[in-house]
Amino acid sequence: MTLSTTRQAPAPEILDRCRELVRPALVESVRRLHPWHAETAAFSLGWSGVDGDPVPGSQGKGVRQALAVLGAEAAGGSGRDGVTGAVAVELIHTFSLIHDDIMDGDETRRRRPTVWKAYGTGPAVLAGDALFALAVRTLAEVPGPTGTAAVGHLSGALGDLVHGQAQDLLFESRPWTGSEVVLPHEYRAMATHKTGSLLGCAAALGAVLAGAPAPVADALDRAGRHLGVAFQAVDDLLGIWGDPQITGKPVHSDLRRLKKTFPVLAALASEHPAARRLEALLTGPGPLDGAGVRRAAELVDEAGGRRAAVTEARDQLRAARSCLDGVELAEGARGDLLTLIPFLIDRTG
Amino acid sequence: MTLSTTRQAPAPEILDRCRELVRPALVESVRRLHPWHAETAAFSLGWSGVDGDPVPGSQGKGVRQALAVLGAEAAGGSGRDGVTGAVAVELIHTFSLIHDDIMDGDETRRRRPTVWKAYGTGPAVLAGDALFALAVRTLAEVPGPTGTAAVGHLSGALGDLVHGQAQDLLFESRPWTGSEVVLPHEYRAMATHKTGSLLGCAAALGAVLAGAPAPVADALDRAGRHLGVAFQAVDDLLGIWGDPQITGKPVHSDLRRLKKTFPVLAALASEHPAARRLEALLTGPGPLDGAGVRRAAELVDEAGGRRAAVTEARDQLRAARSCLDGVELAEGARGDLLTLIPFLIDRTG
Repeated sequence: MTLSTTRQAPAPEILDRCRELVRPALVESVRRLHPWHAETAAFSLGWSGVDGDPVPGSQGKGVRQALAVLGAEAAGGSGRDGVTGAVAVELIHTFSLIHDDIMDGDETRRRRPTVWKAYGTGPAVLAGDALFALAVRTLAEVPGPTGTAAVGHLSGALGDLVHGQAQDLLFESRPWTGSEVVLPHEYRAMATHKTGSLLGCAAALGAVLAGAPAPVADALDRAGRHLGVAFQAVDDLLGIWGDPQITGKPVHSDLRRLKKTFPVLAALASEHPAARRLEALLTGPGPLDGAGVRRAAELVDEAGGRRAAVTEARDQLRAARSCLDGVELAEGARGDLLTLIPFLIDRTG
Repeated sequence: MTLSTTRQAPAPEILDRCRELVRPALVESVRRLHPWHAETAAFSLGWSGVDGDPVPGSQGKGVRQALAVLGAEAAGGSGRDGVTGAVAVELIHTFSLIHDDIMDGDETRRRRPTVWKAYGTGPAVLAGDALFALAVRTLAEVPGPTGTAAVGHLSGALGDLVHGQAQDLLFESRPWTGSEVVLPHEYRAMATHKTGSLLGCAAALGAVLAGAPAPVADALDRAGRHLGVAFQAVDDLLGIWGDPQITGKPVHSDLRRLKKTFPVLAALASEHPAARRLEALLTGPGPLDGAGVRRAAELVDEAGGRRAAVTEARDQLRAARSCLDGVELAEGARGDLLTLIPFLIDRTG
C-alpha cells in the first residue's frame, strides 16, 4: 500500500536533475570570464584538469544549486526560476573554496591539486575574485525588484560567510583551557555563518526568484543555516574518525592539525574526567605524535565529544525540517527537500 | 578681472571637502565588519598602524570618494547623495590594493608594510573578501530602483577590474619581440579595465545615486575610464624616471622588475633603431644589472617611449574632459571635476 500517488525520487536523482537544469547556464556564465579565469573556474568546478581535459568524479555534489532549484519549486515556481540563483551560489561556493584553500594552505581537494597549488597563489586569489564579481553581476542583471531582493540576499550571505571565516581562523589562536577557550555555542555561530549562510541563501534565492513572499524565503534561509551546522558537525566527525579510503585524508587528520572542531570543543566543555586528561594532552609541550593523536581521539570519545557531535547534527537537521514545516510549500518540492537534507550530510559515500 | 563670481577651489581643498563628507559613513561602514577585518581595514586605509595607532600621511588621496561626491553634485544633487557610492568604491579600492599586493608580492605600500606582510597571506585574502562583500552590501541596501542601478554599475566595474588584472598578470609571460609582443593598444585596454573602471564607476555611482539620467552617468563613467589610462601612464613614467625621494621606490624600479609598462611597449612598437637595441637588451640572457637598467631607460627614451607615455596621458585627459563637455552638468561640480582631473595624475607631490 502506498499513501502517495507519485514516487519520491531518491536524493542522487534529485541532485542530477538539478545539475542538468543548471549546467547550461553555469557554463554560459563561466564563458563570460576572462579566458584565463574561465580555465581556472572549469578546473575548480571539476569540469577539467590542469591540462584542460575533463576529470570524471572531481565535481562536488552540487548541493547549493539543488537547493536553489528546489527553493524555486517549493515557492510554487518552476525549477528554471531558480537557475540564476543556482549559478550565483555555485560561483560563490567555488570562489570560497579557492580562497579557503589558500588560507588553510591545503594542497589537495577531491584528490586533485588545489587551485593555488596548480596555478600559483596570486592567480588563485584573482580567480576567486573574478568568480565573486561574476556572481554579483549575475544577480544584478535580474531586472526589477526581484533582482534587487536577490542581490540583497546574496550580499547578506556574503557578509556572514566572511564573518564566519574570520571566526574560524581566530579559533586557531585561542587556548584549549581557561576563560578564552572556544565554547560549543561559539562554534555553532561560526558554522552558521561560514557554512550555513550560503546554503540558506541558495534555497532562499530560488524562492525569491520564483516570487515567494518573504516568510517563505526566510524559512528556507533558516533551514539552510541549520543544515550548514549539521554539515559542519559531520565534517568534523569524519575529520577524526572518517575512513581515509573515503575521506581521502589520513585518519585523525583534524587532530594532527590541532583543529578546534566540534567534537573536541564539546569534549573539553564536559565535566567528564577524560576532558581534563584531554586538556592536559592538548596543552602539553610540542605537537602530538601518532600515539598522542590516537589517545586524543579516545579521550574526545570518552568525554562525550563524538556523541555530542552526532547529537548536534541530528538536532540541527530536526531544526531544519521544522523550519520547512512552518510555511506553505509546494508538496513535491517539500518532499525533495526532506529527502535531500539528510542525504547531504551523509558523507560516507 | 574675473569671469566667475565664485572662486574655483584648488584640488587639495576639493579632496579634503569630499573626504570630510564621506569619512563618518566610511567609519560607520567599517565598524560593521568583524573586528579583526575592521582592524585590517583601518590599517589598509591608513587610519592606524599595525599596533592600532594612527599613522599620519599614510592615507591615499581619496580620489574615488571625491569622484563619487562630485558625480552626485554634477548631476544636480547634493554631495551627500553620493556618499554611499563613495563608501562602496573606497571599500572596493581597498580590497583591490590588498589583493594586488599579494599578487605582486609587494612588501611595502606608502612606506608601510602591505597587509599580507603585516598580517599574513590568508588573513589578507580574507580581509579583502570582507571589504568586497561589504561594498556590495552597502549598495544593495540602497532602496528601490536607484539601489538596483547602483549595484549594476558596481558589478559591471568589478567584472572589468578583475578582467584588467588578468590581462596585466598575463602580460608578464608574453615575449618582448615577435607576434606575441604586447602592443600599446592592448595596454590601453588593460589600464581602462584595471584602473579606469573603478574611477569611472565612482563618478557614475555618485550621479546615479543623485538620480541622474543614464547619459550623464555614462559620460562620467567614460571620463573616469580615460582618467584611469592617464593615471596608469603617469604611474609608469614615475616607475622608470620618478624621484625615489618622492615615489618611495628605487630609481628605474619597473625596469629592474622587467614590467611591461607603457613607455617600454611604446618604445618597442616604434621604428626607431633604438627600439631594436632595447629589444636585444631585454631578450638578452639573465636579469639586467645596474648598467643594463640605466641603458634600458636611455633606449626607451631614445626610441620615443617616454614621450609617447606623456602624450598618452595628455590625450586621455583631453578625452576625459570632452566626455564632460558632451553632457549637462551643474557648473560648480564641473569646475571641481576639471580642476581635479589634471591634479589626480600630478604625482610629483
